Amino acid sequence: MSRTPAAPLPTFADVATARARVAGIAHRTPVMTSRFADERTGARLHFKCENLQRAGSFKFRGACNAIAALPKDARRHGVMAFSSGNHAQAIALAARIESVPATILMPSDAPAMKVAATRGYGAEIITYDRYAEDREALANGIAAERGLTLIPPYDHRDIIAGQGTAAAELIEETGPLDILLVCLGGGGLLSGSALAAAGMSPGCRVIGVEPEAGDDGRQSLARGEIVRIPVPRSIADGALTTHLGDLTFPIIRDRVDAIVTVPDAALVDAMRFFAERMKTVVEPTGCLAAAAAFTGAVDCKGLRVGIIVSGGNVDVAIYGRMLAS
Amino acid sequence: MSRTPAAPLPTFADVATARARVAGIAHRTPVMTSRFADERTGARLHFKCENLQRAGSFKFRGACNAIAALPKDARRHGVMAFSSGNHAQAIALAARIESVPATILMPSDAPAMKVAATRGYGAEIITYDRYAEDREALANGIAAERGLTLIPPYDHRDIIAGQGTAAAELIEETGPLDILLVCLGGGGLLSGSALAAAGMSPGCRVIGVEPEAGDDGRQSLARGEIVRIPVPRSIADGALTTHLGDLTFPIIRDRVDAIVTVPDAALVDAMRFFAERMKTVVEPTGCLAAAAAFTGAVDCKGLRVGIIVSGGNVDVAIYGRMLAS
Repeated sequence: MSRTPAAPLPTFADVATARARVAGIAHRTPVMTSRFADERTGARLHFKCENLQRAGSFKFRGACNAIAALPKDARRHGVMAFSSGNHAQAIALAARIESVPATILMPSDAPAMKVAATRGYGAEIITYDRYAEDREALANGIAAERGLTLIPPYDHRDIIAGQGTAAAELIEETGPLDILLVCLGGGGLLSGSALAAAGMSPGCRVIGVEPEAGDDGRQSLARGEIVRIPVPRSIADGALTTHLGDLTFPIIRDRVDAIVTVPDAALVDAMRFFAERMKTVVEPTGCLAAAAAFTGAVDCKGLRVGIIVSGGNVDVAIYGRMLAS
Repeated sequence: MSRTPAAPLPTFADVATARARVAGIAHRTPVMTSRFADERTGARLHFKCENLQRAGSFKFRGACNAIAALPKDARRHGVMAFSSGNHAQAIALAARIESVPATILMPSDAPAMKVAATRGYGAEIITYDRYAEDREALANGIAAERGLTLIPPYDHRDIIAGQGTAAAELIEETGPLDILLVCLGGGGLLSGSALAAAGMSPGCRVIGVEPEAGDDGRQSLARGEIVRIPVPRSIADGALTTHLGDLTFPIIRDRVDAIVTVPDAALVDAMRFFAERMKTVVEPTGCLAAAAAFTGAVDCKGLRVGIIVSGGNVDVAIYGRMLAS
């Protein structure tokens, strides 16, 4: 049995509010198509390119919305996030744009490039030893001490609503879709996308896509409760979550039609497709949704399909090795 | 002494005519900016992303214009091109769109991917042994026998005018520029860009950029005549020409302010920048102009700079190895 959510669940109205908040701050990213991909799948695929979003991923949408929603006092004190990935960069940039101080807790062995990018957005970086310290306790302690508002990466009403704005823009541009494919980690993007689809394209089947090695979402949907797994191993480093959230799970349970998985090799294949045919750099996690269409994990034949390409933040040397492999 | 051009030189009016012809067929590619690149150079850089052009490079513009300009009879008989690179793919796609038969002469050892892409655009492929046969003689023979119109890759009035449409769109979007940086192989793109700049941004300095190993353009500009060099070795495989054309040279001599060179390592560095910061795949030749700004080969400080990113067609395995190196 799932726990009762701590806060009321976001709705489509929250996605609509988020759209007004992020307009003019977040990019309206392009929707691309590919004749080659359409021939390969027998479908009409519409790729929503959040790899071209500010700070390199959809996470900027949720960050913007969460910061814009803060009361004046909380804005003055500042925000905090703990993440070594896209959420931290998104919070740092959104905070800078809104002139809100940001503190980011990062592991001391985080890639220098990511630390530099986050600092480049003007955030204060605090590092911790990921093997000796409890990140969450540390973050809570610092936040309480300094009066900072902690913004979690996915289990948060404004984050979910903000992430839903990508699918809302997509559907506004394409018209009603038959299927919407969305990558799944903690479920912020998937639950927000499901709210957007329910409000704007009611007949659309919403399908989450996880890495094969980390199918806690699929298990959770099957069992009707949040299933926890050990930290999975996959190149999809944005989807290495061990469990869905107390807010994201009930939305996914009620509004998502299926959750499928794809192997890492299919992510590399999709990454090559994006580079070769669309000249665009997509990180492994960002390839999950497209890979579900390409591998046939979801049969898209004859259908109008929306695909959220979630991000493009990948170390170029690692990216190069994957393309060359 | 340079030879007398065989045909009248194209003018800005020809670029204007080409714009009307390619509108709605060629993509109006995006103009991107990068805060990171601006900070690195102290300039305001505007990247015209022809890597996102149809068939993957600016060559599609010239091909479209040349085919659109053909008389009815020539269209019925069909066109021919010899190339293993972007020009062949561009001619094949432009011909298909205009319902003109296309025959492409390619070396028998051309990469399978390029052959497949060109055939995928509906062209008839004829292969030849590049070590035993004279490509130009062979092409002329087949064209004469079949009544085909041979469309050369750069030394052609309509090709030059068509290539100029990229710079024209760029300047229309940015307003007057101080410098326009353009890669240089046979000179079709550079001469067309110089015509566009002369017509739309008269004070703009137009600068060609060659690979260090193949500086025939720089030598030609210095000596006032076409200088021929042996086939250069560079990763910029779209700029491995041995000499400028009879049409491109006089335009470059009269309208281009300088020609600079950059080493291959600077191309890889620029390629990494495009992947990491702009999430976009650029082939080595397409990095020439940006590399001139990044290396300081052209001092851009305080200036408004246009950069033509010429194409994105690169074997992904080779691309991956370059990023990882």
